[in-house]
Amino acid sequence: MRRFVLIALLATACTPVREAWRPTPIPGATEPSAVIAASTAADWRPIADENLLVIELGDEGMVYVELAQDFAPVHIANIRAFARAGWWDRATVYRVQDNYVAQWGNNDAGPTPPAGIVAPPPAEYERPIAGLAIRPLGFPDSYAPNAGHADGWPVAYDPARGRAWLTHCYASVGVGRDLAPDTGSGGELYAVIGHAPRHLDRNIATIGRVVEGMAALTARPRGTGNLGFYQAERGERPIPIRRARIAADIPAAERPHFEVLRSDRPAFDAFVTGRANRGGTFFNVPAGGVDLCNVNVPVRRRPN
Amino acid sequence: MRRFVLIALLATACTPVREAWRPTPIPGATEPSAVIAASTAADWRPIADENLLVIELGDEGMVYVELAQDFAPVHIANIRAFARAGWWDRATVYRVQDNYVAQWGNNDAGPTPPAGIVAPPPAEYERPIAGLAIRPLGFPDSYAPNAGHADGWPVAYDPARGRAWLTHCYASVGVGRDLAPDTGSGGELYAVIGHAPRHLDRNIATIGRVVEGMAALTARPRGTGNLGFYQAERGERPIPIRRARIAADIPAAERPHFEVLRSDRPAFDAFVTGRANRGGTFFNVPAGGVDLCNVNVPVRRRPN
Repeated sequence: MRRFVLIALLATACTPVREAWRPTPIPGATEPSAVIAASTAADWRPIADENLLVIELGDEGMVYVELAQDFAPVHIANIRAFARAGWWDRATVYRVQDNYVAQWGNNDAGPTPPAGIVAPPPAEYERPIAGLAIRPLGFPDSYAPNAGHADGWPVAYDPARGRAWLTHCYASVGVGRDLAPDTGSGGELYAVIGHAPRHLDRNIATIGRVVEGMAALTARPRGTGNLGFYQAERGERPIPIRRARIAADIPAAERPHFEVLRSDRPAFDAFVTGRANRGGTFFNVPAGGVDLCNVNVPVRRRPN
Repeated sequence: MRRFVLIALLATACTPVREAWRPTPIPGATEPSAVIAASTAADWRPIADENLLVIELGDEGMVYVELAQDFAPVHIANIRAFARAGWWDRATVYRVQDNYVAQWGNNDAGPTPPAGIVAPPPAEYERPIAGLAIRPLGFPDSYAPNAGHADGWPVAYDPARGRAWLTHCYASVGVGRDLAPDTGSGGELYAVIGHAPRHLDRNIATIGRVVEGMAALTARPRGTGNLGFYQAERGERPIPIRRARIAADIPAAERPHFEVLRSDRPAFDAFVTGRANRGGTFFNVPAGGVDLCNVNVPVRRRPN
């Protein structure tokens, strides 16, 4: 009888109850800009020349995309092949949908894809956690059991399945596709220009992010067609792309260089803490939390 | 001795452990567009004529803002007084900061504020939960213990403190201010044009949201000055506002009418479920979650 009482007591007292997360604000946290100012060279990693896609939109701006080699290698090999074959030279931005995406390429009307394109690539929508050094965000995510950063990339992950995936944040770049099982060749790309459409995660290949030049895509008329496609019959003109190159193919003297704040060092911890606890002279109430896509991992120019 | 064993057992077994949230995807959830198509008139509430600010940007578009009367009544009374005194007639959009805000008004260079303006208004940054019918979102929030919707507005709330606040989502409108204790008069307003800057929550008065016309603010050159201010010396021209009126002051025959999906009815539940579990022909992996600012509460035109 005594044993039954004990079991009953344990059962009553230990019913698993989810304890709601509560933010724990940190007043006086170092402002993100001050974290950057205090960082050292070792806190940054360079973007490799092979992983930088440079898109020239005529006189209207440049767009620089870092390619996420560790997340979608086959799509990215295709993208390099497309760039080297001139696929985007004289292509256009033909779709701008407000609070969603700007999309560019040849809109299914282009030249024959170059040799060496893998079509269709595998569905590189997620990958093993193993091999990634993930720094947990430390705050809840509305879409996944866990979120964090790996090598400066925003990721979500599920230890129970052993899988991780690049997330759709502002400035993320993905591969347009038709209905599954199509996975998109990589010839048609889009950048997120609004609030993070995380519902696209694991439904489409995310291949990188714009590290400079978003305004060249966002400060554009929205297309009035379905999904923001420009409507020629309404006088809406696609935005010409002059050319797109891999940085490694640009003469060394003209080649742009960028670096990303590493996510495996204390400077990154301090940066996230600062983003989660804004202070300085303007902010009076630190939130005590930040969502994955509002961390805004710093990228900056690196001297040639 | 037996009693100590029991206490030790309970202490060991019942140490509060936070159980991580896991999404529970719902395959085959009704698509959001189908929820709207199946909704009835009773699922919508009209936007009151007194709560609709109509901004005319010359030939370049109209912006319609619903005012959140229940969250910032003093700021909103000011805004009505400003509109009725012609404060924004011949004002400008003078700041467009990428992935942050577009801001308009007279940029501290305007005429004398009209009579009846409360300056400064109280800091209407949060309010009591009591009096709000909040529908919990049902998914974690990265900034607050709880998030949900009240009368169609995205809110965060903290039952332990009994407080709720309007959140900064895409298209949210807030009141520009100088450093605290200034709370902003309401004469300078901004709309969020990027990923939700939730760190502004409770630091500034949020007074409503753009219900139609975001593209008139987003498809604009970004200012190259600090914080996205247009730089006259670089030839950047502020965007003229022709006039701004409260809808109640527009002749009845020309008056625009909108309605918002009510957040206290099953149609809203189905809409949120659909946003959290995208399906249809394109999406193959429903997320099983959605963040507050990606719910995108539907607003539509209502016949006159």
